[in-house]
Amino acid sequence: MSVLSVNLAENSYEIVIERDVLPSLGQRCRDIGLKGVAAVISNPTVAALYWSVVRDSLEAAGFCTVLIEMPDGEEYKNSTSLNRIYDDLQSGGIDRSSFIVALGGGVVGDVAGYAAATWMRGIPFVQVPTTLLAQVDSSVGGKTGIDHPKGKNLIGAFYQPRLVLIDVATLATLDQRQFRAGLAEVIKYGVAIDRSFFEFVEKNRVAILAMEPDILIEVIHRCCQLKAKVVEFDEKEAGVRAILNYGHTLGHAFESVSDYCGLVHGEAVAIGMVLAAKVSAAKGLCSQDDISRITTLITQCGLSVEIPHFDRQLLLSAIAADKKSKGGSITFICNHGIGMYAMSRHTPEELLILSGLEA
Amino acid sequence: MSVLSVNLAENSYEIVIERDVLPSLGQRCRDIGLKGVAAVISNPTVAALYWSVVRDSLEAAGFCTVLIEMPDGEEYKNSTSLNRIYDDLQSGGIDRSSFIVALGGGVVGDVAGYAAATWMRGIPFVQVPTTLLAQVDSSVGGKTGIDHPKGKNLIGAFYQPRLVLIDVATLATLDQRQFRAGLAEVIKYGVAIDRSFFEFVEKNRVAILAMEPDILIEVIHRCCQLKAKVVEFDEKEAGVRAILNYGHTLGHAFESVSDYCGLVHGEAVAIGMVLAAKVSAAKGLCSQDDISRITTLITQCGLSVEIPHFDRQLLLSAIAADKKSKGGSITFICNHGIGMYAMSRHTPEELLILSGLEA
Repeated sequence: MSVLSVNLAENSYEIVIERDVLPSLGQRCRDIGLKGVAAVISNPTVAALYWSVVRDSLEAAGFCTVLIEMPDGEEYKNSTSLNRIYDDLQSGGIDRSSFIVALGGGVVGDVAGYAAATWMRGIPFVQVPTTLLAQVDSSVGGKTGIDHPKGKNLIGAFYQPRLVLIDVATLATLDQRQFRAGLAEVIKYGVAIDRSFFEFVEKNRVAILAMEPDILIEVIHRCCQLKAKVVEFDEKEAGVRAILNYGHTLGHAFESVSDYCGLVHGEAVAIGMVLAAKVSAAKGLCSQDDISRITTLITQCGLSVEIPHFDRQLLLSAIAADKKSKGGSITFICNHGIGMYAMSRHTPEELLILSGLEA
Repeated sequence: MSVLSVNLAENSYEIVIERDVLPSLGQRCRDIGLKGVAAVISNPTVAALYWSVVRDSLEAAGFCTVLIEMPDGEEYKNSTSLNRIYDDLQSGGIDRSSFIVALGGGVVGDVAGYAAATWMRGIPFVQVPTTLLAQVDSSVGGKTGIDHPKGKNLIGAFYQPRLVLIDVATLATLDQRQFRAGLAEVIKYGVAIDRSFFEFVEKNRVAILAMEPDILIEVIHRCCQLKAKVVEFDEKEAGVRAILNYGHTLGHAFESVSDYCGLVHGEAVAIGMVLAAKVSAAKGLCSQDDISRITTLITQCGLSVEIPHFDRQLLLSAIAADKKSKGGSITFICNHGIGMYAMSRHTPEELLILSGLEA
C-alpha cells in the first residue's frame, strides 16, 4: 500500500494507491469524518463495473448512497451535464452534511469535483479515479471544471478533494486506447520535471504496457508525488504549477478542434509534447537527440505523434482561448533538456512557427 | 471618507465608503494592481445611470473596458444569465490578466462575483454596489452564486472581491421600495449582534429615511464593520457566520414561494425577522417587549410585517431546501434579547409551530 499526503493547510488530504482497495472506500470515508449521504457521480460504463462494490462498501460503513450518472465522454463535460447533476443533488437531498464521490475518469472527476465545489458553495468530495489519466493527473491537485463551447476547462474552480482512492485493479477494465493515452501524462512528468522518472519509464515500459500491478503502483505513486509537490508549492497556479501543462497548450488546441481528428486528451498531449520539444529546441533549450528520445518513448507507449490535419485559423483561435493566455500572449512550457522545464511567452502565431507547424 | 479592511490573509481587501467616490474607481483599481480589460457586469437600469462615469474613470486609468449587461431582477439570477456572461467574457477576450467589476445591486454582485470565481478557475473582481442591500450586506464577505430552480443560492462559491467601492450618492437614484428593503438587513445586524447599533438606527431613523449622506455613511460603515468581523472569524460559514442569516431562513422560504406574494429580498427578511423573534420568544430567549420593539422599528422603516398567504407544503419544502439544512433539520438563528444571537436546530415543521405560523 502506498499512501501520499498532499499538504495544503486546512485543505490537506491523502492519496491511497493499492490493488483491490475499492472495498475499503466506505471505511476510509468514515475515518476522515465524512457523514450523511454519499452521492456517487459516475457514468454508465464505470457504474456497470464498480457501482455495486462502491455501494456495498459505503453502505457497510453506514452511509446512505445515491448514484448520479452522467454520459460518458469529453463532449459531456458541459453545463448541461452539470445542471442535471445539480437537479439530482437537489432531489436527492444532498446538503452540506453529505458528500460527493467521483467514480470514473477525468471527465467524471472534473465535473463531479466542480459540482462539489459549487453546490451550496462547496460540499466535501472524494476522488475515486478509474482511468490511468485520472489516477496520475486529474484526480490530484483540485482542478475542477467544465468546458465552454469555445474552450476546454474555461469554467471551473480550485477545490481540493478530501481523499483520493486509487485502485490499480480498475485499470484492468480500461480500454487499451485510454490506458495508452494516460501514459502521455506519465511521460509528461518525466520530460518536464524528473529525468530519473523519465528513465524509469523508458526502462520499465514493457512491464508498464503489460500492466504489472507493482510497476503501475510505482508509476502512479511517483506521478502523484511529483504533482503533489508542485501543487503544494502553488495550489492556484499563480506560477510554477503551470509546468504541469507541459504539452498541453498545443495539445489542448488540437483537442478542441478535434472534430477534425478525433483525438482523446492524452493522445493530444502526446502530440503537444513533441511540438513543445520542437519549440524548446528552436529556442536552444534542448537538442535534436532529446526530441528523438522523447518521441521514441511516446511511440513505444503506443501513442501516435503524427500531426493531424488542421485549420490554421481554428487552431490559432483555440490556442488563444487557452487559460494561460494573458493579454494576447501565452505562457508556454518548454523542456530544458529532459527533466527540467523553462517558461517563455509567445503569441499563438509564434508557437506555430517555433513548433514547425508553419514554415 | 471611511475605509475598512477585511483581513483574510491573502484574500484581504478594503471597503471604501464615501459620497461621489465613483470617479475614483479606475485609479483605485490601478492602485491595487489590477491590469488588462475591465469587464463591467451590470443591468440596463444601473448602466444607464452609471456606466459612463465608470467607463470614463476606468479608461482614464488606462484600462480597456467591456460592458456586459444582464437583465434586472432576482428571477435572472440563474444559469441562463451566467452562461450568457461566460459567452461575453469569452468573446471579450477576458482572461486571467483582466478583471470583472460588478456594478449594481445584490443580484449583479452575486452573479458577477460567481462568474469571476469560476471563469478560468478565478479572475479578480471588484464590487461597486449601488443598492443599500448590496452596500450593507451582499457586496462584503465573498458569497457569490446563482439560484437553482428549487432554491435560492444553491449554486455558488466563497470568493472574495479585491475591492469594494461604495458610493452613497448612488442611493439617490434607488427606488424607495428597494431602499426600505435594504434597511431590513441594517436592522438585522442590530437585532442579531449589536444592541447599540440597533439603538442608533432607532434614534436616527428619520435621518436615515431622509437619506442624509453622513448618516448613511455611518450606517453602512457600521454594517460593513460588523459583517467584516464575522467573516474574518469564519470566512466559509463553518459556524458563526451563519448568524448573518438571522431572519433569512423563513425569509428565504417566503421569498422562494413569492410567485404567490411578490416579496423582494429585504421585505422577506423583514417578515423573517419578526418570525425569528417569535421563535426566540417561544424558546424563552427574548420577551414580548423585544418582539414589539423589533417589529416597531421594522414598520417605522416602512416595511410590512404582514405574513403573506402561503401554501404550507410549498413553504415546508422551501425551508427544507435551505443550505443550512443538515440531515433534515436546520440551524436556526434566534435573537437573545436584542443584540445577541443564539443558534438552535429545528425541523421545518417545528419552525412553523414555534413561529406561530401554525397552531
